[in-house]
Amino acid sequence: MLTLDKIYHASYVLSDVVRKTALVQAPKLNPDCELYLKPENLQVTGSFKVRGAGYMISQLSAEEKAKGVIACSAGNHAQGVALAAQKYGIKSVICLPDGAPISKVEATKSYGAEVVMVKGVYDDAYNRALELRDEMGYTFVHPFDNDNVIAGQGTIGLEILNELKDIDAVVVPIGGGGLASGIAFAVKQLSPKTKVYGVQAKGAPSMYNSVKSGKRERLDGVNTIADGIAVKEPGENTFELCSKYIDEIVTVTEGEISSAILALIEQHKMIAEGAGAVAVAAVMFNKIDVKGKRVVSVVSGGNIDVTILSRVIKRGLLMSGRNYTLCVELMDKPGQLLGVSEIIAGLGANVISIHHERASETMDINGCYLRIVLETRNHEHIKQVENALTDAGYKLV
Amino acid sequence: MLTLDKIYHASYVLSDVVRKTALVQAPKLNPDCELYLKPENLQVTGSFKVRGAGYMISQLSAEEKAKGVIACSAGNHAQGVALAAQKYGIKSVICLPDGAPISKVEATKSYGAEVVMVKGVYDDAYNRALELRDEMGYTFVHPFDNDNVIAGQGTIGLEILNELKDIDAVVVPIGGGGLASGIAFAVKQLSPKTKVYGVQAKGAPSMYNSVKSGKRERLDGVNTIADGIAVKEPGENTFELCSKYIDEIVTVTEGEISSAILALIEQHKMIAEGAGAVAVAAVMFNKIDVKGKRVVSVVSGGNIDVTILSRVIKRGLLMSGRNYTLCVELMDKPGQLLGVSEIIAGLGANVISIHHERASETMDINGCYLRIVLETRNHEHIKQVENALTDAGYKLV
Repeated sequence: MLTLDKIYHASYVLSDVVRKTALVQAPKLNPDCELYLKPENLQVTGSFKVRGAGYMISQLSAEEKAKGVIACSAGNHAQGVALAAQKYGIKSVICLPDGAPISKVEATKSYGAEVVMVKGVYDDAYNRALELRDEMGYTFVHPFDNDNVIAGQGTIGLEILNELKDIDAVVVPIGGGGLASGIAFAVKQLSPKTKVYGVQAKGAPSMYNSVKSGKRERLDGVNTIADGIAVKEPGENTFELCSKYIDEIVTVTEGEISSAILALIEQHKMIAEGAGAVAVAAVMFNKIDVKGKRVVSVVSGGNIDVTILSRVIKRGLLMSGRNYTLCVELMDKPGQLLGVSEIIAGLGANVISIHHERASETMDINGCYLRIVLETRNHEHIKQVENALTDAGYKLV
Repeated sequence: MLTLDKIYHASYVLSDVVRKTALVQAPKLNPDCELYLKPENLQVTGSFKVRGAGYMISQLSAEEKAKGVIACSAGNHAQGVALAAQKYGIKSVICLPDGAPISKVEATKSYGAEVVMVKGVYDDAYNRALELRDEMGYTFVHPFDNDNVIAGQGTIGLEILNELKDIDAVVVPIGGGGLASGIAFAVKQLSPKTKVYGVQAKGAPSMYNSVKSGKRERLDGVNTIADGIAVKEPGENTFELCSKYIDEIVTVTEGEISSAILALIEQHKMIAEGAGAVAVAAVMFNKIDVKGKRVVSVVSGGNIDVTILSRVIKRGLLMSGRNYTLCVELMDKPGQLLGVSEIIAGLGANVISIHHERASETMDINGCYLRIVLETRNHEHIKQVENALTDAGYKLV
């Protein structure tokens, strides 16, 4: 059973395994409240997962430790288990679905884990991990539905309360619910008046649905860039704890998550993964009542694939008018490209690429298209470029 | 004159203006040494500049404070001066060249500065700032060549030595030389055996050239993504201090800077700007002798425009084989696109864009090109895709 004692004990045990990440004040993300970030993206392994895995592994018997542990994960849990096992000098085996990003496989290996690639998806890797557990006598480290794992994550709650007084609200991402359960339990025991909010991605609302209907609900599929919280079904323990200790669960969209990632980069020079940014997104987009309140958002992790990061940044640039694709219809005669180029250069927009295309069937036989990708300053700057081209007689399509 | 006393005094005065950024251990950036990062990108305003500006402004007379300060900068210094002036409740005016990125202009305004946009380049803005100083009686805050500014930056040296013992080397970016002078002075006073290395961008080696030739040298032009250290000429004081206290100055290339930025994102979930990454690049690429040593690299700032960040990430993806542009020559007949698509999909590569082009003059009249941008896993994966296409009879160009 989860107790405050256990969380305090975890805090003591983990002191030489994890970093005590210091709160960062974030006045610009939502000027209507006094917001702080708990930056677990700056934790060792790039996420909070090492806390739960570390405490659970530390509590195994000598016999269990001698046999080693096994886990299944394509992400943060894998790295958390691998590092924790390394710290305690025991063997770890991680089953990964074979489509897992190469960067995560390499990171897991770098902490000394034995990696087993399993053909198929997450569920196949999970089943293989259970088989190996039975065959080899490994202890299975569940990613969330285990009291010691939850107690480990709960140490974040203690750290927050120790560092800052009179907190009105703590906002926490929810996937399987281990992080949210641990933090909510710790916070409610010590500071019952502090609200605890859970945040899920709109594309993976398993705990949201479950708490609403009063029983564990399983999603058919999940669809979100917040892969770290794309969980189809809450755990048994975590469902009970979240139902009891979380005041409200809200959801955020993919666009809101992307904007939060970009804001954390620009304002705080830190990388959050999708799951790590949802609690910030919920505050930025006023999904919860934060006006005039002292609020802590947990940034749970930063392990985002740079390919996805690159797309998120691109989307952010488009949304803020700093990247713009222009399509001009022009007569197919000499000097047209020069004319357009002069107008663009004169306004200080920067050409990234040009694509010149002739003889489309839908156009005048002599016509052609010019598709230009530009770096612009903002939406107003885009308007200036468009107006200048239109004024000079070019037709924008 | 710069004294250790002054740096200690700055440290005391700044204690409620700046964050004491905590060292971060970075075992993966260069496994041959024990590397720590001093993350001044996580400093308020996103760079160390607030330290020097803060201490200088704090030491003004009541009369000077009443009149206000002026500075010229398109970047970190502008934000540092603006925030420091706001903290001390005095007026600040910042002259910016009109090509400055909109994000930096907005950030400077957000700290309460009055922004004057000046037509032209940095030198024009600088001259306008001096004119306004003379007209209005403002005090000019130099970005680096001032003892109090240098003493403020030197507080970083004190913090590093207070947090970690027996450091073999401290590695510091050099632009105008204020940061390097302050840190080198503090370190050499307290721990003479610790080496201090300076790092410049190969495209802007003004201090490197000056120290080499024994007199201040002015560059005709600078060309680097590390805009924060793209300085044409060292200061008088900083030239003397760097000549005396820096053991060696090295340079890094644009590719090395990009790789360091990407490594800081992937390994440490933090954003560095180009100038902020040079001291990491020097250690990653063994520009200095760090083998077996305890080394601290100063990450001086994180204010990188996301447009540039996006390009740096793209370059990093290309270099690591995770983004790949393929050009296939195919006969212009039905079913060709399908064939290529099947091969690519079968190998798990992800299509980002396709461009299909007919009737180029240099080709067979019936031929056409297919230019495909792919997300791939690594160089080996690219090889697999290429081989599969070649084996199926397609010609890669």
